[in-house]
Amino acid sequence: MIRPELINPKSIVIVGASNNVQKPGGKILKNILDHKYKGQIYIVNPNSSEVQGFKSYQKVDDLPDQIDLAILAIPAHLCPDTVEILALQKGIKAFIIISAGFSEESNEGAKLEKRIVDTINSVGGSLIGPNCTGVFNTNYAGIFTTPLPEINPQGCDFITASGATGVFIVDLSMTRGLPFSSIYSVGNSAQLGVEDILEYMDETFDPDKSSKVKLLYMENVKKPQKLLKHAQSLISKGCRIAAIKAGYSEAGSRAAASHTGAMITPDIGVDALFKKAGIVRCYGRDELVTVASIFMHKELIGNQLAIITHAGGPAVMLTDALSHSEIEIPPIKGEKAQELLSYLFPGSSVNNPIDFLATGTAEQLGIIIDYCEKEFDNIDGMVVIFGSPGLFPIFDVYNVLHEKMLTCKKPIYPILPCSINVADEVNDFISKGHVRFPDEVLFAKGLISVYNTPKPQLHIKLPEIDKNTIRHIIDMSDNGFLAPHLVSQLLDAAGIPRAKEKVVTNENEIDIALKEIQYPLVMKVVGPIHKTDVGGVVLNVKNKEQLLKEFHRLMHIKDATGVLLQPMLTGTELFIGGKKEGEFGHIVTAGLGGIFVEVLKDIQIALSPVSLEEALNMIKNLKGYKIIKGVRGSEGVDEQIFANIIQRVSALLITAPEISEMDINPLLGTGSNIVAVDARINIQKN
Amino acid sequence: MIRPELINPKSIVIVGASNNVQKPGGKILKNILDHKYKGQIYIVNPNSSEVQGFKSYQKVDDLPDQIDLAILAIPAHLCPDTVEILALQKGIKAFIIISAGFSEESNEGAKLEKRIVDTINSVGGSLIGPNCTGVFNTNYAGIFTTPLPEINPQGCDFITASGATGVFIVDLSMTRGLPFSSIYSVGNSAQLGVEDILEYMDETFDPDKSSKVKLLYMENVKKPQKLLKHAQSLISKGCRIAAIKAGYSEAGSRAAASHTGAMITPDIGVDALFKKAGIVRCYGRDELVTVASIFMHKELIGNQLAIITHAGGPAVMLTDALSHSEIEIPPIKGEKAQELLSYLFPGSSVNNPIDFLATGTAEQLGIIIDYCEKEFDNIDGMVVIFGSPGLFPIFDVYNVLHEKMLTCKKPIYPILPCSINVADEVNDFISKGHVRFPDEVLFAKGLISVYNTPKPQLHIKLPEIDKNTIRHIIDMSDNGFLAPHLVSQLLDAAGIPRAKEKVVTNENEIDIALKEIQYPLVMKVVGPIHKTDVGGVVLNVKNKEQLLKEFHRLMHIKDATGVLLQPMLTGTELFIGGKKEGEFGHIVTAGLGGIFVEVLKDIQIALSPVSLEEALNMIKNLKGYKIIKGVRGSEGVDEQIFANIIQRVSALLITAPEISEMDINPLLGTGSNIVAVDARINIQKN
Repeated sequence: MIRPELINPKSIVIVGASNNVQKPGGKILKNILDHKYKGQIYIVNPNSSEVQGFKSYQKVDDLPDQIDLAILAIPAHLCPDTVEILALQKGIKAFIIISAGFSEESNEGAKLEKRIVDTINSVGGSLIGPNCTGVFNTNYAGIFTTPLPEINPQGCDFITASGATGVFIVDLSMTRGLPFSSIYSVGNSAQLGVEDILEYMDETFDPDKSSKVKLLYMENVKKPQKLLKHAQSLISKGCRIAAIKAGYSEAGSRAAASHTGAMITPDIGVDALFKKAGIVRCYGRDELVTVASIFMHKELIGNQLAIITHAGGPAVMLTDALSHSEIEIPPIKGEKAQELLSYLFPGSSVNNPIDFLATGTAEQLGIIIDYCEKEFDNIDGMVVIFGSPGLFPIFDVYNVLHEKMLTCKKPIYPILPCSINVADEVNDFISKGHVRFPDEVLFAKGLISVYNTPKPQLHIKLPEIDKNTIRHIIDMSDNGFLAPHLVSQLLDAAGIPRAKEKVVTNENEIDIALKEIQYPLVMKVVGPIHKTDVGGVVLNVKNKEQLLKEFHRLMHIKDATGVLLQPMLTGTELFIGGKKEGEFGHIVTAGLGGIFVEVLKDIQIALSPVSLEEALNMIKNLKGYKIIKGVRGSEGVDEQIFANIIQRVSALLITAPEISEMDINPLLGTGSNIVAVDARINIQKN
Repeated sequence: MIRPELINPKSIVIVGASNNVQKPGGKILKNILDHKYKGQIYIVNPNSSEVQGFKSYQKVDDLPDQIDLAILAIPAHLCPDTVEILALQKGIKAFIIISAGFSEESNEGAKLEKRIVDTINSVGGSLIGPNCTGVFNTNYAGIFTTPLPEINPQGCDFITASGATGVFIVDLSMTRGLPFSSIYSVGNSAQLGVEDILEYMDETFDPDKSSKVKLLYMENVKKPQKLLKHAQSLISKGCRIAAIKAGYSEAGSRAAASHTGAMITPDIGVDALFKKAGIVRCYGRDELVTVASIFMHKELIGNQLAIITHAGGPAVMLTDALSHSEIEIPPIKGEKAQELLSYLFPGSSVNNPIDFLATGTAEQLGIIIDYCEKEFDNIDGMVVIFGSPGLFPIFDVYNVLHEKMLTCKKPIYPILPCSINVADEVNDFISKGHVRFPDEVLFAKGLISVYNTPKPQLHIKLPEIDKNTIRHIIDMSDNGFLAPHLVSQLLDAAGIPRAKEKVVTNENEIDIALKEIQYPLVMKVVGPIHKTDVGGVVLNVKNKEQLLKEFHRLMHIKDATGVLLQPMLTGTELFIGGKKEGEFGHIVTAGLGGIFVEVLKDIQIALSPVSLEEALNMIKNLKGYKIIKGVRGSEGVDEQIFANIIQRVSALLITAPEISEMDINPLLGTGSNIVAVDARINIQKN
């Protein structure tokens, strides 16, 4: 639980504050002072009577009561006792421990850490850290690192599981003009982790005052359901979230585990969770900062951009970079386009990219933006590329850009490629609250990531299934793979079509079976174990005459007790699977069978419960999607029905969370006729 | 032709030089002076008697003879006459025309441009431009843009078809510390284009003095064979080349065409050419600068890196980013690893990434690098990640890095993520001749691009084929698709196996045919047109008894004149194609047939002639490569033989350049048995 004292402390004690600002305990006090903290500051340092102008207490026992927040920058082994005094005797309920040497280092450290957490939990307190850089927000800079970003309540809220990575991201952000509202370095997350801070941001969200942009850096996801819930909730309230989950590869996750001592998080779960929550997944610092910079602009409603440039090359590279996405650079034509052209110098082009040449002026830029904003209905947003060859200042150009960005309803993304020639102009532009994109191709990649991230699925409606039957079967079953007839019953209860089958022992039963199963048929002798060896399987039986002839032959095979009739199925090989991934819950997989899954690993995933939209997207995102649509004269597969079966598998998993793993493989599809041919279900009750 | 006067002029006249340094004509003079040009400078400006301290001639007629180079910064319409006087009367043979308003703007401009080129050609002169920013090299800064990079003869040689893009790339490079040896802005390439400058660099290459790094920015490739030849040659001399060819997408190439008025270059040709030449293809400015920065380091021999870091997060992200490539972060273990660990603080890890913690010192960094250099045989290169949380200066760390980079044989790539906290340290490091990588993930992408670019294939040996027969058939053929029997003859002459076929009319002929064609067979009646309708096709004939029985039946069909015997072929569907792409020559394509090409566009390409290594790489890079290796119990396809057939197609295309297009589809492969089943060849003689 995050207590208000952690967020907005009226008083802070820094235990281990120092006059040496090259030490964390010295620097954190300096940062708090530089940041103009308005509350009361207390200092504990046994070696000094005065620290940076403040009276220093010799020991924590001497402190007054009623201090809101304690920041500890003392050796790890001293922390547990100190916390005990502060929490139990002095009534402090909010703690930031920046000291290292805890669970990240050794078992002894882990024990110290546990003592601290137990103490703080016993008083219902909050703990950030240990092994963190601290907390920075609009109220105080309880962080020992620099650079300190300028405070902007509408800047990014940034939660990082790595202090150093946080510093590097802030450094890069500041060179781009990306502002921050808060930074939480959670360190070892001994008590409060990334998910808990996000929960707090959700629960205290104020649409008028809270920042709408959240950035996360994580190396594991300990509480996936909490992350999912609050990310979805925040996004549904108008926030945008981008996150790095480092350690997605096997090698990377090993590196992360050795670095944090944390459990390895299954990346398939992270991917599914981020998609479901609507979190834009990033893979590096530059990408995170680029996506965050895009978030600082008005949202792009639609997919059509105008590229406005005074230099051809970057516009071509940007067009290239967007060409593999759904974002379009539509042609701009017609009377109004000609009218716009008349304002530009000879040689200019308005046919998107709008190239107004190296000699293009601020005034022309303003006119172009106005036309894109007001006259061109097929334009949803603008990218303005403007640098300088260094001949003269371009304050006027960037001022026009600034003013238009304030007044236009459509988003305007500024690509400012020059940091040396027009450093002053860029800094002036940034100082007005804007963000700079230095590279058009990296911008394009970020924009595509944002565009391709689905909206969170909040009220998911699953198909109705027979829950009572399912619960009954599951409750009666032991752990392990279910018997085939129970699998069939579960599929039936979940409304998942499967290949019809009937065991017949006489001609009368054959007549009844033929009312349900159509030719061509497959016949399999029942009884003998090795059916094929004894000639007990007949394929492609096309009529009654052949059926009866084969029936009598099969019934004469030794040990035969009956004959199983199934329709002879053909169609596109599909599969649907479900697997429990710990706290993430069930991941539903779907795809094309055969070589597509074997050779191309053509599998799409979603976190259960799977909405219809998600199921349809899974299908559309398959590499072999054209097969579903039908190629080479084949009929293909009805997407709506395939999606419905994916949803039914998800509904089955929700009803029976004891299913640890299941798969329907193959599922054969021809048009709207999609049936499960084989399925396995594994139960693991705790 | 590039004349020496263009590269190293003893005297320069600037026509249109001005006192106003906000104008190109004023700025170019200022740049030449700032750059400390040692030769004679002449000025022509009718409106001033003195320009920036130099006597100004009123008209070009007044100039003395024997000036080496003329730089024109005057309106386009004045250029042709001016050039005429300078070239014909004053004997000037080297020109840089920075003025715009030529072929890039209008037909009138194109005419002016042509007059200039004709004049300069008539005296055997050289022309850079028009519509360019100029030329910068160790001898002079004949360029009107800033920033001017510091000169470093071992820096990059950079040829750009877009002046503004060149400025933006130089700006970014300078913030990273990337040095330049020369910059050529070729503008409209009216006479000299990117390829010609590269040719010059190749022909004048001095292994002791010339820069080893070449960077290109192109929007079209006018002279692909020239580019290929000299890029290959330079790389074989030890150079490394990276290039952007913008306009690779359809939308992008349209944007480039509207911007330059140039022809659209087929991107498949560019891709094949870059691969063959060994040029690292880049798609954006940041990527080009990153790859160039990698080039400035010692070459990575091998594929195993040590990541040395004082911060866990970036090391994890770097490990992730490299995980999809062949570059490995191998575990570091054993006695020496334990020895190294003893030098580091508790909690450090040496099991690669080597994490020596936030408290890690310069001395420790030096020890770690020494161990990687000398003790760990499985390490081929190092990445050092070191930033700062801002507590104290880290000059000592970057000095160790600097010294080790000079002395170590293995490459050391410095990732320096902080540009604010340790700006002075970073600048000091750069000033010592190093380059900074700010982002580990973007670095990884660049390194992977470099690693994946094949070495140029210089002395390609193609299989022996029957050239006489091929030439005879081609010479006798008209334009259009060749008749099937001629296609068969060409395949035979090229040594490309095709499905055997024999027409037999009696049992004796059957015996002869069976020496060449193995069971199972396909039998087709010869004579009747609709063979299937008359029961004239028999599949899967497995033995002599069946064959004879069916033979006699088929010969009794009305109009039967014989029976065609073919082997009953099964196997993996493959294809090989060839297509002439203008001046690029023939592009050879290969891949898997069926859904792989139809659904997944799984096609690999190479520029003919195709080496064995290239052919094998084409096969290995197929998405469906696992099919070639054999999956689901299938035998797969012999890669060496498939590659040999690809080479034979290439040899056929080299022998018969009149083939505009051909394809062998399907080509059926089972193990070493790969045969063409169907083929088409189209001839287009000029």
